[in-house]
Order: sequence, then C-alpha cells, then structure tokens
Amino acid sequence: MNVAIMGFGVVGSGVAEVIAQNADHISEQGLGDLRLSHILDIRDFPGHAFSRYMTKDVNDILSDDETRIVVETMGGLEPAFTFVSACLKKGKHVVTSNKELVAKKGFALLELARANNVNFLFEAAVGGGIPLIRPLSLCLAANRVQEIVGILNGTSNFILSKMITDGMAFGDALRLAQEKGYAEKDPTADVEGIDACRKICILASLASGSHVYPDGVFTEGITRLTKEDVAYAEALGCVIKLIARAVRLQNGQWCVTVAPALVPESHLLSDVSGVFNACVVRGDMVGEVLFYGQGAGKLATASAVVADVIDCVQHDEKRRTFGWGPAREGLLADPMEAPARLFVRAKTADKAADTAKLAAALPGCTLLESAEDDLVFVTPEAKEGALRSAAAGLGLGAASVIRLF
Amino acid sequence: MNVAIMGFGVVGSGVAEVIAQNADHISEQGLGDLRLSHILDIRDFPGHAFSRYMTKDVNDILSDDETRIVVETMGGLEPAFTFVSACLKKGKHVVTSNKELVAKKGFALLELARANNVNFLFEAAVGGGIPLIRPLSLCLAANRVQEIVGILNGTSNFILSKMITDGMAFGDALRLAQEKGYAEKDPTADVEGIDACRKICILASLASGSHVYPDGVFTEGITRLTKEDVAYAEALGCVIKLIARAVRLQNGQWCVTVAPALVPESHLLSDVSGVFNACVVRGDMVGEVLFYGQGAGKLATASAVVADVIDCVQHDEKRRTFGWGPAREGLLADPMEAPARLFVRAKTADKAADTAKLAAALPGCTLLESAEDDLVFVTPEAKEGALRSAAAGLGLGAASVIRLF
Repeated sequence: MNVAIMGFGVVGSGVAEVIAQNADHISEQGLGDLRLSHILDIRDFPGHAFSRYMTKDVNDILSDDETRIVVETMGGLEPAFTFVSACLKKGKHVVTSNKELVAKKGFALLELARANNVNFLFEAAVGGGIPLIRPLSLCLAANRVQEIVGILNGTSNFILSKMITDGMAFGDALRLAQEKGYAEKDPTADVEGIDACRKICILASLASGSHVYPDGVFTEGITRLTKEDVAYAEALGCVIKLIARAVRLQNGQWCVTVAPALVPESHLLSDVSGVFNACVVRGDMVGEVLFYGQGAGKLATASAVVADVIDCVQHDEKRRTFGWGPAREGLLADPMEAPARLFVRAKTADKAADTAKLAAALPGCTLLESAEDDLVFVTPEAKEGALRSAAAGLGLGAASVIRLF
Repeated sequence: MNVAIMGFGVVGSGVAEVIAQNADHISEQGLGDLRLSHILDIRDFPGHAFSRYMTKDVNDILSDDETRIVVETMGGLEPAFTFVSACLKKGKHVVTSNKELVAKKGFALLELARANNVNFLFEAAVGGGIPLIRPLSLCLAANRVQEIVGILNGTSNFILSKMITDGMAFGDALRLAQEKGYAEKDPTADVEGIDACRKICILASLASGSHVYPDGVFTEGITRLTKEDVAYAEALGCVIKLIARAVRLQNGQWCVTVAPALVPESHLLSDVSGVFNACVVRGDMVGEVLFYGQGAGKLATASAVVADVIDCVQHDEKRRTFGWGPAREGLLADPMEAPARLFVRAKTADKAADTAKLAAALPGCTLLESAEDDLVFVTPEAKEGALRSAAAGLGLGAASVIRLF
C-alpha cells in the first residue's frame, strides 16, 4: 500500500528509513506491503537517496488515488492542519507525530476521519516510540482510567537529571542539552512545560472521552528551578521531576496539570533519567501499569509512526474506533482546589520573625535546616490555592514553590 | 455480544466481575455490548450472584450460536485444549489467560483459529494485566525485535524481594508467599522457573515468528539460592532476580533462557519488587521500552482478558493477524555457547590451594572477600559452558553458580 510523507525533518526522514529498512520484515509477517510514494517538503534535497519521491506540491499527494496513507511529520499547526484535513476529506488515512496538531485540533480531525471512514492515528505524538496511546485505548479498554501521570518531556528531564546528578545550574544544563541536540535553539516549548501539556492533554482526552485543550490546563515549567531547590529536594529524599498528571476526581471531573514536583526516591518515576520518558496509568481493574522508553529520537518516533501505518493497512476498510468527543464544560477541575503539600524556599531578612509568622499563618509546617537568609519549609496537606496564598502572604522574597508528588 | 467463561477460578470470576462492573463503560465508548451467557465449571456455586449462568456441560456453550466469544480461564492443558479446540472449530473466538496452553499448544490453536477465521488471543497469558502481547505485536510491528528480557514471575520475585530486603531464607520467604496467597501449595511451577519459561516462550514465539516450546529452553529456578548469595550480590552492587530472556543472535538464532541473575542496582529491573513484573523489549528502531505492572491478580489479569474480548468484538469479521508459525529446527542456540560472566560461591577445605587452582584453571577471576571455608569469585567473560566446566573442575563443594546480568 502506498504511503506519502509530509515533512522530511527528523521524524519524517526516520519514517522513510524505517520503511526502507524493514518493509520486507513487515511484509513477511503478513502485515502489509508498504511502498513510499511521495515525500512533501518545501526544501530541496539534491542527491538524497529519497530524492525521487520529493515534491513541493501537496496536490501530488491529494490527487494520487493509489496513496491511501499519509504520514504528517511537519509539526506546527499550519499548514499541517489544512493538509491533514484535505487528506482525510480525500478518504486517505492519516498518521501523525504532531502533538500540537492533535492537542489543539484532535476532535475536529477525529470527526473528519469518522465522516470519511478513514483512520486518524497518532501513537507517536505522545512518548515517541513508547507504546502508550494504543495500550491505553485498547489494552486497558476494560478499565475506567483513574489517573495518568508521567514524565513526558525528555528535554526537560535531561536538564533536571544534569542538575541532580552533576549539580549543574539550569542555564548550563540547558546549554548542554542544546549542544547535544536534545533542546532546540528556542527551548520554550520544552522547558516551559508546553510540550508536556500537549501530551497530557492527548492522554486526558483519551481517558476522559472529551477533548481537553491545552489552554485550559495549569502549566508550569522548570526555568525557575535552582541548584538549591535540587539540593533541598535531595535532603528530603526526593528528586525534582517535571510531572504531567491527569486525575479523575470522585465527582467525575478531571484535574490536569503540568508542573515540577518533588518525587520520592522510592518511586519508580524518580529513576527515569536523561531523555527518557515514563508514564504510569492507573485503571480501576488493572491497578498501575508503567510504560518507559525513549520519548523522542528519530528512529524511535518513526517506529511508532510506522506501527500506525501498519494499523491503517490492517484497518483499511473497517476503521479503528478510538478517539474522543467534543470538549465538555465543567470537565476540568480547578487544580488550586485540590489537596497538595508544598515545598517552599524563600529569602528572609529576619528568620526568627518570619518563622513565627509562618507558624501562625500555616500551622504544622516542617522547617528544613537552611542558611540564615533562607526560610525553607514543607506545608501540611491542604488546598493548593490556600497554601499558595498563605505562603505569599508571608511577604518573603524570591520564593520557589514546588508541589510534593 | 455474548461471552461465555470456561473456568470460574480466580481469573474467571474476575472476568465476570469486570464485565458486570464495566460493561456500561465499554458500551459508552462504542467498543461493544458485552453480555455474559454461560459460566462453565465442574464445581457448584449455590447462591452465587452469577449462578444463573452456571453450567457443567461444555456443549451448552458449543451449541449456543449466540455465544461468539469464549474465555478460557481453566488453566492446565486438559480439558482446556480439547474445549478451546472445539470452540474454535465451532467458529467462536477464544480468549485465554492460560500460559501453559499457549506455550505448549499455541501454534496448533493459532492454526485452528486461522482455518476457522476467528481470533485466538492471549494478552493475559503473559504479565497479567500489563499490556505486553499487543504492544509487542502491534506497536513494535515496524521493528525487528532483538531482545526481550524481564521478570515474568511475581511469586519468585516476591520471594527474592523478601530475601533481599528482609534477609529471609528461601524457605521462610516461600512460606510467607504461601500465607499471603502469592504462592500455591505446590509452588514448583513458580519457584523452578517453569511459569516464567512458558511466558518467555510465548514472547519469543511472537518475536521470532516460530513456536518456541518450553522443553527446549534452559530453565533454572530460585530454590537453591541462599541468604549468602543475596549478601554477596549486594556486596557487588547487585540484586538477584529470576530473569527470563530471549535474545536474537547475529546468526539469526535465538538464545532463550530462564535463570537467576545478578542485576546491577543501576538497572531498572533491579527496582522491580514484590509481586510486580517488568519486561524490557529492545527493537532495532525503537531502542528499549519497558512495561511494568501487576503480573498477576484477579482483576488485573481479568482486565487483560476483557481487553481481548473487546478486540474480538472489534474484529469479529476481519480477524486479527498475529501469532507465529511452526517450530523451526535450529532456531534455538545453545545458551552454554553464549558469552557470560559467572558468580561462583563454593565451599573449600584449603582456600590457598583452591585459590591457586582457580588462578590456573580460570585466569582473570575477581576474588571476593569471604569466610575461610568459602571461595567466592566472579569470572571474566567467556562461553558459559566452558566457565561452568572449569568451575566444576575445581572440585569444590556445594557451589552456587549465578550469571551476571
């Protein structure tokens, strides 16, 4: 079956490579005969091994009835959304690795796929090569999913790992990540939690059955974390991780957040280092299951894309039924209403006085040993919003506030 | 769609419970309407909530054309094999959690399913509720799988965990496991590695494409491990785990083994404690991915069974295509020909003399500090068979020989 690729960047070229290298193996297993038909990219690749497939005109793909499956690996919202929509309307299956597209336009594209009786699959959009979307929607189909919690951004996890194991400052660790090609020149989406937010939105949409849009989700990155925070975390037997989380509450609402958290060293997620990703899914029947692996990388992500392509071949006539409905008002709970314990580190000009103020404003806090101009404490459990207000009300300077896992 | 259950033990009753509790949720997701039709068991369950479904005659199921899906949770080879064969011949999909059945009769039953255009699914046979079979065969379909290595038996892992963290002797840990219901009265299949062997055979069959039968696989259990072995492992920065492993060699053969191994504390598998299971799959494209969760338990295992049932509903007409072919002569490599490093602990009557003999017979060993009547060493890497012969040739008493991971 003919396959076109839109976007010949890291993942797109990986998809071409996986098909070239393993098409015979896939065919031998009776999973279908994959043939590359077009590669769409605005750039020129003179002399490239795949140059005979290159085109700059999406109409070459749209008008080719032999091309039943289109892989979108362009990234970004446009023109990806326009091109993917056009492919679906033409009755072509679409496979994408584009988390921004799925997080922001997933419901619209799923509807379009439904209307045209084709598949719209996106295993590679979350967790790179780690099987996650399909296990969640198929293997755990007999469960009501209660919680999804994970480390979904490899770049920020690499930076945090370097801060933890090598005592690096955030800025130095970021520069190292950029040198190694793990972070982009503009690292905002990774270090501000935006990328992790898109991914948890996709997982929360699958688990809740309603589209969860990124703009409604509390998102905090890792840019304000310091070496001091990392050291205090260690003293508490914890490591700091950027945690993406979606929890179903008793009332049926979902609490979805992305923020750094102090993870106890005894928890499996604390062992996830470097660019690796991990995700724990808790179902009412299965308990907790954890998925771990490379969350990014050319061939790992391409492996997930090609698995989706194979699924399209298998479900060419009878489409796969999974996805979600439109956004539901009131689905998302206010995370500031949820119970939490907070770690707070702040500057103090008068430690004795501020300690007394803290004891009055927030009774039951645990004070940590700290320098004379630092006040460091862990709060008891209460509503996160109330805890943050009380901490802010102390009028301390330059406070770090980090949730306990 | 009507579903019958054969065998109302732990898993079978869990399946009935999951269907009763979550059928509405499954239906709401558009995944099918599951209705229980029969429960086959030779025992009586008077007054049981499910007693109206009970039958002692398999023909009630075979002759009911409305029952399109049959769940087999009886365990053991017979009458499970006869009953499952009859169901497949009658054009019914079969879902099983019975690893012995799949490991010993998988190819025959897959052929029968093919011939009758129905599904034969067994996600629950390996790793209980952990999604493993489906991710391996679908999500990693674009990969040539190079290695599968895991902790696949929760009972023995519980026993080893107690020996490691609480310093218990094997016998005491086994009794505790029996008290807690993790080990059966006759624990042979768990502690001798037989259960783990069945599971790695199923995974190796999937990965290699040819049926790997348990009787061809090198299998060693944990019954001979002592507190001393555990302590020496700790001194080496390792923990002892029962490791099931299937590796594709350069020449295309597979090396499949079940045996205890010294796993470095830095490796993720060393953190898998208690009754949990974990499995690492290494693909040529995806790199390493790890799956972790409850490897047994009533509802966890039932959750995997019901996911397969849902898959049958989704693929009632066009069957799922995965499985493997007949056993292939020469597929399995002799594990004694593979390179390994061994940990050896043995009794000595003359430590100085035996140390000299060791240096002559096996140059390059690392000696560990030990009591005067103990000789403890780690060999350099060589063919495992040659290492074992050389160690045996020393004529030492009561030797423990454990592979390094």
